[in-house]
Amino acid sequence: MDAKVSTKPHEMLAATLSQEMAAVNALIRTRMASEHAPRIPEVTAHLVEAGGKRLRPMLTLAAARLCGYQGEDHVKLAATVEFIHTATLLHDDVVDESGQRRGRPTANLLWDNKSSVLVGDYLFARSFQLMVETGSLRVLDILANAAATIAEGEVLQMTAASDLRTDESVYLQVVRGKTAALFSAATEVGGVIAGVPEAQVRALFEYGDALGIAFQIADDLLDYQGDAKATGKNVGDDFRERKLTLPVIKAVAQATDEERAFWVRTIEKGKQAEGDLEQALALMEKYGTLAATRADAHAWAEKARTALELLPNHEIRTMLSDLADYVVARLS
Amino acid sequence: MDAKVSTKPHEMLAATLSQEMAAVNALIRTRMASEHAPRIPEVTAHLVEAGGKRLRPMLTLAAARLCGYQGEDHVKLAATVEFIHTATLLHDDVVDESGQRRGRPTANLLWDNKSSVLVGDYLFARSFQLMVETGSLRVLDILANAAATIAEGEVLQMTAASDLRTDESVYLQVVRGKTAALFSAATEVGGVIAGVPEAQVRALFEYGDALGIAFQIADDLLDYQGDAKATGKNVGDDFRERKLTLPVIKAVAQATDEERAFWVRTIEKGKQAEGDLEQALALMEKYGTLAATRADAHAWAEKARTALELLPNHEIRTMLSDLADYVVARLS
Repeated sequence: MDAKVSTKPHEMLAATLSQEMAAVNALIRTRMASEHAPRIPEVTAHLVEAGGKRLRPMLTLAAARLCGYQGEDHVKLAATVEFIHTATLLHDDVVDESGQRRGRPTANLLWDNKSSVLVGDYLFARSFQLMVETGSLRVLDILANAAATIAEGEVLQMTAASDLRTDESVYLQVVRGKTAALFSAATEVGGVIAGVPEAQVRALFEYGDALGIAFQIADDLLDYQGDAKATGKNVGDDFRERKLTLPVIKAVAQATDEERAFWVRTIEKGKQAEGDLEQALALMEKYGTLAATRADAHAWAEKARTALELLPNHEIRTMLSDLADYVVARLS
Repeated sequence: MDAKVSTKPHEMLAATLSQEMAAVNALIRTRMASEHAPRIPEVTAHLVEAGGKRLRPMLTLAAARLCGYQGEDHVKLAATVEFIHTATLLHDDVVDESGQRRGRPTANLLWDNKSSVLVGDYLFARSFQLMVETGSLRVLDILANAAATIAEGEVLQMTAASDLRTDESVYLQVVRGKTAALFSAATEVGGVIAGVPEAQVRALFEYGDALGIAFQIADDLLDYQGDAKATGKNVGDDFRERKLTLPVIKAVAQATDEERAFWVRTIEKGKQAEGDLEQALALMEKYGTLAATRADAHAWAEKARTALELLPNHEIRTMLSDLADYVVARLS
């Protein structure tokens, strides 16, 4: 037992929902077993046991509890959401040829790409079985649509990432695929199984969507102005990997011909030289795009908090609202 | 218009179901579109337009028609089944590092592994949306279980393929994952949406399962005794790729110590030399495992035909029965 009381909202949520999260973790362990293919639990355990904040399943549990849900299906849906998330991480690591995830070597490095692809598919199938068990066609519809948005966003990111025509609306679609679609599905299904009125279901969707977008914009901004020690990333990784994120998209939109040539060379063609990152940062400074991106992140966080107003006044609502603040607070 | 009348059962099925197959193809084209990610239809069209016999969606249409189904959901489910199949092909090509599929370069070679992984995920998500539209939880349950069996079988194949402990029961599980699970789901859902009695639903499952197993065993046998011109494969590809299939599993089970050492060297360790394929074939001859494998294939085909007896007497039933014959007839 830890005597310290955390004030971080995701840790307060975790403490409040600890019993249900334990049930989710137990269900995840049971369902990732495979009698004949031990490679499956090996790969999955490597990733699942590595931790992570379990933010997505927590959102489902929180939404259900906030809506007064009394049954057991929220545990199944929380595990579903975590399985979908884990499956996408496995596939992402193959796609990105990553070597590290959550501070450990990735599965594709420890085993091979094959294992990552196939075990990811297995987790998708398992998540699908779990959600069918809830017997709710509405829930299935929400999660099927989220799965399509996620996959479409991933493909879009692959083709649009280094394409200077990528504008803010495409960026938003990529962000929904990468992060917000699963956040919003996670919160929405919590309300659906609780049977709350349509306006509240919609509010839960809006909250998850806006929270996910705020979260991802903050992540992309920190890539350019973060503290490497705090974020575990080096400043400018996205630039070096030629990823068009919001601060650059905003700078490209206002670029002079000469500046545009710079972006074409460094992002589209990937011909980067010493001093280019500094030049990129200078252009973002010139147009104030880092400040504008920060303002966008705060606006989405505000949108998330506002959505919660339609939901019951409850300690979990406060924590969810604080979570939206917390996600952008690190941007200061 | 082709004036020739085919006597091949799958071509007779295709002719009988041509109107519904056209609807399936139209639906596939609509649903693989993506407004913002043109890479998706590019990759998918490459594979879908390449043809293939469309055997799986045809099985769904045939089962529904045979059971007197009058609605439109069989078209959605047939497209679902084809999407799942196409998604697994895309992922298989990444896993196998294949360069050719259906006589054309594979998507992972034309584009990249990323595209194959992510577009495969997109098709899975699309198939999931399509099946949810039918509104049948029973159908969703069947397809979720099939998806899990497929994924588990693929992982199992990866880890068990070169492991001499792989016995006939593991082989059967791999075969169900590779082929039979989608065949049996395809036929079963056709009966489910038609609302036929449970015994007939079960019979449709048994037919698809046995047909798929017969089909895969025949394929594995032809690898050792096929005509390269007819099969498009070279004799012994599976041996060279160290894949334990039924003819070898049966020979390993009866091996002397010296023979076992041969299998350990060639399959487990993959240290193959000139003359090893001939030696492998001689051992299969010694124990009559090619003949025994052929007998197994015929027995599964017979099981498929027998299952059909519970279903209505109908020209489609005759074609399905002939299809089971046809699958093993090429074994002579």
